[in-house]
Amino acid sequence: MDKYVPVAGNGLLDRRAFLRGGAALAAAMTGYAIKPAAAETLSDPEWSNEPGTLVPPYGVPSKYEKGVVRTLSNPNAEPRTQHARTPHHRLQGMVTPNGLHFTISHAGNAEVDPERHRLAIHGLVKRPLVFTLDSLARYPMVSRFTFVECGGNSAPLFSPEPIQANVQALHGLASCAEWTGVKLSTLLEETGIDPKAKWVVAEGADAPRLSRSVPLSKILDDAMVALYQNGERVMPGQGYPMRLLLPGWEGNMNVKWLRRLQLTEVPGMTYYESRTYSQILPNGKAYRFYFIQEVKSFITQPSVGLAMKAPGFYEISGMAYSGNGRITKVMVSADGGKSWAEAALQEPVLSKAFTRFRIPWQWNGGPAVLQSRAWDDQGNVQPTRDEIVAHRGVAARVPPVLGFPSQHFNGITSWAIDAKGEVRHVYA
Amino acid sequence: MDKYVPVAGNGLLDRRAFLRGGAALAAAMTGYAIKPAAAETLSDPEWSNEPGTLVPPYGVPSKYEKGVVRTLSNPNAEPRTQHARTPHHRLQGMVTPNGLHFTISHAGNAEVDPERHRLAIHGLVKRPLVFTLDSLARYPMVSRFTFVECGGNSAPLFSPEPIQANVQALHGLASCAEWTGVKLSTLLEETGIDPKAKWVVAEGADAPRLSRSVPLSKILDDAMVALYQNGERVMPGQGYPMRLLLPGWEGNMNVKWLRRLQLTEVPGMTYYESRTYSQILPNGKAYRFYFIQEVKSFITQPSVGLAMKAPGFYEISGMAYSGNGRITKVMVSADGGKSWAEAALQEPVLSKAFTRFRIPWQWNGGPAVLQSRAWDDQGNVQPTRDEIVAHRGVAARVPPVLGFPSQHFNGITSWAIDAKGEVRHVYA
Repeated sequence: MDKYVPVAGNGLLDRRAFLRGGAALAAAMTGYAIKPAAAETLSDPEWSNEPGTLVPPYGVPSKYEKGVVRTLSNPNAEPRTQHARTPHHRLQGMVTPNGLHFTISHAGNAEVDPERHRLAIHGLVKRPLVFTLDSLARYPMVSRFTFVECGGNSAPLFSPEPIQANVQALHGLASCAEWTGVKLSTLLEETGIDPKAKWVVAEGADAPRLSRSVPLSKILDDAMVALYQNGERVMPGQGYPMRLLLPGWEGNMNVKWLRRLQLTEVPGMTYYESRTYSQILPNGKAYRFYFIQEVKSFITQPSVGLAMKAPGFYEISGMAYSGNGRITKVMVSADGGKSWAEAALQEPVLSKAFTRFRIPWQWNGGPAVLQSRAWDDQGNVQPTRDEIVAHRGVAARVPPVLGFPSQHFNGITSWAIDAKGEVRHVYA
Repeated sequence: MDKYVPVAGNGLLDRRAFLRGGAALAAAMTGYAIKPAAAETLSDPEWSNEPGTLVPPYGVPSKYEKGVVRTLSNPNAEPRTQHARTPHHRLQGMVTPNGLHFTISHAGNAEVDPERHRLAIHGLVKRPLVFTLDSLARYPMVSRFTFVECGGNSAPLFSPEPIQANVQALHGLASCAEWTGVKLSTLLEETGIDPKAKWVVAEGADAPRLSRSVPLSKILDDAMVALYQNGERVMPGQGYPMRLLLPGWEGNMNVKWLRRLQLTEVPGMTYYESRTYSQILPNGKAYRFYFIQEVKSFITQPSVGLAMKAPGFYEISGMAYSGNGRITKVMVSADGGKSWAEAALQEPVLSKAFTRFRIPWQWNGGPAVLQSRAWDDQGNVQPTRDEIVAHRGVAARVPPVLGFPSQHFNGITSWAIDAKGEVRHVYA
């Protein structure tokens, strides 16, 4: 059997094709390398004939990667929210490097002096306590890979017409890192818990004192005070020197520059949970709270802006994740959902973390519509866009703004490829 | 049973103590937080009363973390090797952030233009091929977390007397990242392999044309041309735009700025394998090749420079890894090796990757000698320093230099703590 026979419509190949290897691979791939008469005759560029540059104390990307940056919604730091979006189409693997982790700051990045910063745990506790960074360092720590995603990520897909923008603009408000810190269950053993406590109101040290209410059950489950991000201290845009980390829950709830955790009987109904991050429904009512970032996926390569230069072999690759648990399956379509093939999941596949998926594709040079769809181990499946819109409505303005459906879009994204290899965002 | 009864000498507690939780925890921990009369009365620092700063296109650490950098052996970029060492004592988790990944550059960082860079695969192949960065992007990719470690890492421990230096100076030439690229087994299916080929000579595009010979079997097993490091393009100090990645093998063999792979019948006996990175033995002979970075561990917290301010609870934490496979066990001693307790291994525990270990410790304020010892799934155990020195000798000069034992030290590291809480490097 020829394993390069497509397993789904429009050229999708078996995900195991390249794991198995074999002579047929060369036939599938041929054409991408240059074939010199003698590979030995490489020219010597100037960097091979000159001393190199200083190895700096803190490494930064090559000057040739200057274009691989977060896009800013407010580059002059005017007195309103700043967004910085992750360039998924320029990245690979599951880790988002710290320089490119998405950031939303509602009043800029607070410049917190770690020596003077304090974290208070108070309210319905037996012993209110205040922690310094040094005192937190005395506690047992845990590490975990987890994504953080803004509730408003992917909001442009609520628009009635597909907005022509790349994956960074559409889905760039989600990132994944290895976080290390002290579990809140550990700190709450220190303070003790009044049995009346049901909620924890978390407050940041930034100028808006950004506050969100979290059920105590989540705090005791897997929440941590995160002190490190991919090994080093959390970045300023992620809440240096400490943030609340609620694996899989709405980004805004992962309060940055964390300085206060108040145990209460009822939620605080704060500004950011009662207005900004509430989800308006078609009947005019709103979800009171919508904690979990539901199962989702999108294709990052190919995607808008990454034009395909010629027919032949491509690897389709993207990101899948679920705030409910572990990704168990990602299906990919090259014909707009008429047929599907299962993608390979890159190990390690971790609960509430980005999972990189990949599938080989033989593009015949004709029109194609690429889609991905993810499943998690709690039995959830990523909905189609139509399914989401049927429940939540369509934004009446483009781009979506507050007050219209703008939160928790996790439907399928579709990339249409035309005969020139250009990629467009479509609804399919 | 009281789970805070030590499980080994000098106060080591059960690694599961804090996983289980329970009321006794508070008793073990008490004393690290400040206990205010009312935690609500936090003062408002200036950053809570002013707008924050611009969220930049590429995030960098807080200005308060300016001291968390790599230490440079050649800060003026004189025409000799430059080393930049990872500050393990300031990091947590298993990922080394890209800015702090160790670098050794024998002639500085080559500033390679990715558009003009070429990778040739030639020699004993059926079809010599040259690849551009764009052409490599057409191939299926894989990601894996793996450490890279210089063969000379930890060389100071060959000194006859323990050198007083911190963990960055002693063990800072090892780091761990998620690498993504194209497997060499894939590219060699394209070129075909002449049955006479047994070795691959890899050459960099830097000024020394740094070259190393790799057995073809390793190339076909798990080697890749790495294009991404923790999600973004590999850093200049890691070989931008591409490096050879040989999981678990001597760092110098992971040729950076990779531009040539020549399949040969015999090794090249290049400068860097026949002189610089060869291991001299006590009888005056040398190992011809020493590929694998053997099983190893060291404690990062507490360690030299991180003074302990008061008796009580501490978490002992460190790094374990093996070029042979997965870490299966780390034992920790607080009494210089007289008794041992098993540390907790932080998930995910991945083959040939850093594994963070942790164990709780109740320091009574008296003298202690902390050690860690690791095991891997191939049955290897980290040797004591005495065992290493018995086989390889002791350096006749301090610090060790070329020509003396200076390579592949993987023995146990010992930190002595005195009654003031100061940490010293000792042989025990």
